[in-house]
Amino acid sequence: MKHLLGIRELSSEQIVHLLDTAESFRDISKREIKKVPALRGRTVINLFFEPSTRTRTSFEIAAKRLSADAVNISVSTSSVSKGETLLDTARNLEAMAPDCIVIRHSSAGAPYHLTRVCNAAIVNAGDGSHEHPTQALLDALTIREHKGSIEGLKVAIIGDILHSRVARSNIYLLSKLGATVSVAGPGTLVPREIAELIEQGVRVEQRIEDAVADADVVMVLRVQRERQTDAFFPSMREYAVHYGLHLDHLSLAAPDAIVMHPGPMNRGIEISSEIADGGRSLILDQVANGVAVRMAVLYLLAAADGAEKPAIEEKESESREGGGVRGRTRHQKRGSRE
Amino acid sequence: MKHLLGIRELSSEQIVHLLDTAESFRDISKREIKKVPALRGRTVINLFFEPSTRTRTSFEIAAKRLSADAVNISVSTSSVSKGETLLDTARNLEAMAPDCIVIRHSSAGAPYHLTRVCNAAIVNAGDGSHEHPTQALLDALTIREHKGSIEGLKVAIIGDILHSRVARSNIYLLSKLGATVSVAGPGTLVPREIAELIEQGVRVEQRIEDAVADADVVMVLRVQRERQTDAFFPSMREYAVHYGLHLDHLSLAAPDAIVMHPGPMNRGIEISSEIADGGRSLILDQVANGVAVRMAVLYLLAAADGAEKPAIEEKESESREGGGVRGRTRHQKRGSRE
Amino acid sequence: MKHLLGIRELSSEQIVHLLDTAESFRDISKREIKKVPALRGRTVINLFFEPSTRTRTSFEIAAKRLSADAVNISVSTSSVSKGETLLDTARNLEAMAPDCIVIRHSSAGAPYHLTRVCNAAIVNAGDGSHEHPTQALLDALTIREHKGSIEGLKVAIIGDILHSRVARSNIYLLSKLGATVSVAGPGTLVPREIAELIEQGVRVEQRIEDAVADADVVMVLRVQRERQTDAFFPSMREYAVHYGLHLDHLSLAAPDAIVMHPGPMNRGIEISSEIADGGRSLILDQVANGVAVRMAVLYLLAAADGAEKPAIEEKESESREGGGVRGRTRHQKRGSRE
Repeated sequence: MKHLLGIRELSSEQIVHLLDTAESFRDISKREIKKVPALRGRTVINLFFEPSTRTRTSFEIAAKRLSADAVNISVSTSSVSKGETLLDTARNLEAMAPDCIVIRHSSAGAPYHLTRVCNAAIVNAGDGSHEHPTQALLDALTIREHKGSIEGLKVAIIGDILHSRVARSNIYLLSKLGATVSVAGPGTLVPREIAELIEQGVRVEQRIEDAVADADVVMVLRVQRERQTDAFFPSMREYAVHYGLHLDHLSLAAPDAIVMHPGPMNRGIEISSEIADGGRSLILDQVANGVAVRMAVLYLLAAADGAEKPAIEEKESESREGGGVRGRTRHQKRGSRE
Repeated sequence: MKHLLGIRELSSEQIVHLLDTAESFRDISKREIKKVPALRGRTVINLFFEPSTRTRTSFEIAAKRLSADAVNISVSTSSVSKGETLLDTARNLEAMAPDCIVIRHSSAGAPYHLTRVCNAAIVNAGDGSHEHPTQALLDALTIREHKGSIEGLKVAIIGDILHSRVARSNIYLLSKLGATVSVAGPGTLVPREIAELIEQGVRVEQRIEDAVADADVVMVLRVQRERQTDAFFPSMREYAVHYGLHLDHLSLAAPDAIVMHPGPMNRGIEISSEIADGGRSLILDQVANGVAVRMAVLYLLAAADGAEKPAIEEKESESREGGGVRGRTRHQKRGSRE
Repeated sequence: MKHLLGIRELSSEQIVHLLDTAESFRDISKREIKKVPALRGRTVINLFFEPSTRTRTSFEIAAKRLSADAVNISVSTSSVSKGETLLDTARNLEAMAPDCIVIRHSSAGAPYHLTRVCNAAIVNAGDGSHEHPTQALLDALTIREHKGSIEGLKVAIIGDILHSRVARSNIYLLSKLGATVSVAGPGTLVPREIAELIEQGVRVEQRIEDAVADADVVMVLRVQRERQTDAFFPSMREYAVHYGLHLDHLSLAAPDAIVMHPGPMNRGIEISSEIADGGRSLILDQVANGVAVRMAVLYLLAAADGAEKPAIEEKESESREGGGVRGRTRHQKRGSRE
């Protein structure tokens, strides 16, 4: 694994390895000294063409807790406004020898294009309505933390499936790990891709109640008011009435069902505050796991670079200073011994 | 002291302790290697909902000189524009396990709200017209540096008292430490809160000359052109004529009076350039002390966390590397030995 | 050398020393651990009043690879909008004790003004149409890398000479190091300064073909669409036809001629994609050398500070950790032993 472009390209073994590595990093953020030297002297560039608090901050914190040098570039201050192409921007950044470029872009496929001109590891932090793989990984880590395993679970995803890179990445991941996925959302928002979804084994329901029935996990998608979805349903009010998750929906799910949301939430629209703040909500666990997942991704992609990668032992002894990374992270690294 | 929300809540002992700690940090910025490892592995988030150069930069430099990981979030690039509530933003950041969140917000009380949902130490970097505690602390450190003590001094504050969080924090602090405060500003700007001010022992004057008479310290407030104050007086010209500080005002003050301004200055409006650049002006000393005060605040709030805080001795031995913090900082820490 | 304001003020010896130092830093970015402790505990402020990806990022990465604390200030989030003067902003930053301030500003001379009020080393990262010295240095480093020496080369610069700080800095540098420079650009863009150029020994040509003839190096300038140049020629199309560099131009140059562009490129306007992506293009080498040049500049200006500068030996032993800086960097430092 040289890049992380999407979940679709990953094997279930690779996903499990990413989750295991993330788990081993989770403790670091609970210590007083939240820092290990694993990526000291590496450069991580956060290249964000769309605004973001949580994802950019999560990646930045992940990089810094691994001792990498993190450099943020947001589109508003970038020379993109000077007419440079995305590939030229990428080539230029590549010439500055970053180890990893984390990119968020409104166009599906933008991260893939970067891999054509960059030696740096490319991490997709969300591209158009294509994929958002670290979101699916942190969701899976959260589910695994609370349910033990993903295999055999019934997961309902509610909302604008059509525009959601979160839904897409989650559907790929959950299917690969053996969960059953059902989706429900405004009729106008699902049809075109239903065929592909059904191919993945996804059950497409018209009513939120049918999707949620007996679900172990209910994932609520964000209404992306800043995107073009306005045209798809009459009003936010309308959306809230028909597709907002309420307590009575939850009573249809499994007794120990958990609720997730990728944030930022529109309270009172796609999710009621009772649920968001209730005992079943794992929304903040997701955020905490996001840092661990991004640490794992950056570590696995940027820590070692084929031929010249340092012995893991060295890294482990180094890391005594700040904490240490569990032994399991030594497996399955790119260009590694196995 | 778990948070720093305002000066009002502090005892005079706490204020003095903060100032003493800041004094011990002042030297670090004068060295060639301006860095101590006191906050290594801690995460400090600067969450700014209002634009700021000096305050954000001052906190960022303070954090970095203590070896903390500093993460900047400014409102223009944040997901706040996506409709998330302030508390949800705070909860999400909290889930990423920061040790300290420094917040500037246009609404009074925003930092307090954060304390309801965060374990991280919250530092108020200015909230509406409420408080700006680190500004008052750096002002006090500057006065103490030049006058030896604050007790018994006569301090005049000139300008828009009503909208000034700087004035408010300074009035609390100076009163607690035994100074006498007199204020003067445009009539429309003071009346409503006069009662509270008088309760604090503040003398409210109509004319700038009466406030400045015999003053040891003259603090000039900034005319906040970006706020709604335009409605309160006819023009900037008018303000400059009636409430701008000129050399002839200074001749009424004590012979060794000092002049302060929180910046950024509107030269020729609230302060004449002769005074701003003159020998009595301590405006740049204030800025230098700002870094020391913010280092002290971050250190006292984020260095140790109750049960799991490291022995100070360890920190001191560690800090041989970059400089070392004076022994006095070991007293009165939150959850500390006394 | 206390500041780097422009190439004009430098001796050829100083230029060569900067290039030699940059060469010694070039390897650092090729290692896995791209970091040396040379500027640990120093503060570098990037103060950008104009948007920039590559230059700001290049300086930030350079600072971080030297272990300096880098602080970014961009005009959009700064208090400049609150009406503070440039000099007051500079005085305030200076009070926070930075070791170096890197400034980009739309006004020629802005960096010079900063030197009047700052003890920090000031580095000009581009000021109006005046100078952009690190660009000329990285261009020279790139030429030297590929041609061995600059002396005796024939260099053609094509484009809007009048508005180009890049052209100006390059003309100074190339002339000092013994190259012959010829320029060509839209007629409206060169006349006023022709006299000064000719004084520098520059040959001013009307046709791009005459400038490029037999050139060893062809430098293409960017059409700065965001500046006021729109008024100078009818349309971008017109510019592309008359002053865009095409393959048939290159056939007039020396057989081993190299092509350079400061970026960001307007493909199809000032340069054709065939050339930009062709074997003679060194555009990405320029970017890579930019990091090395900026490391050298920051190191030479900020590493030692007169009396209290650390012995170089200490720095060299320290730097074993991350790599080490070659011995030649110990020469000609400000306040140094020679």
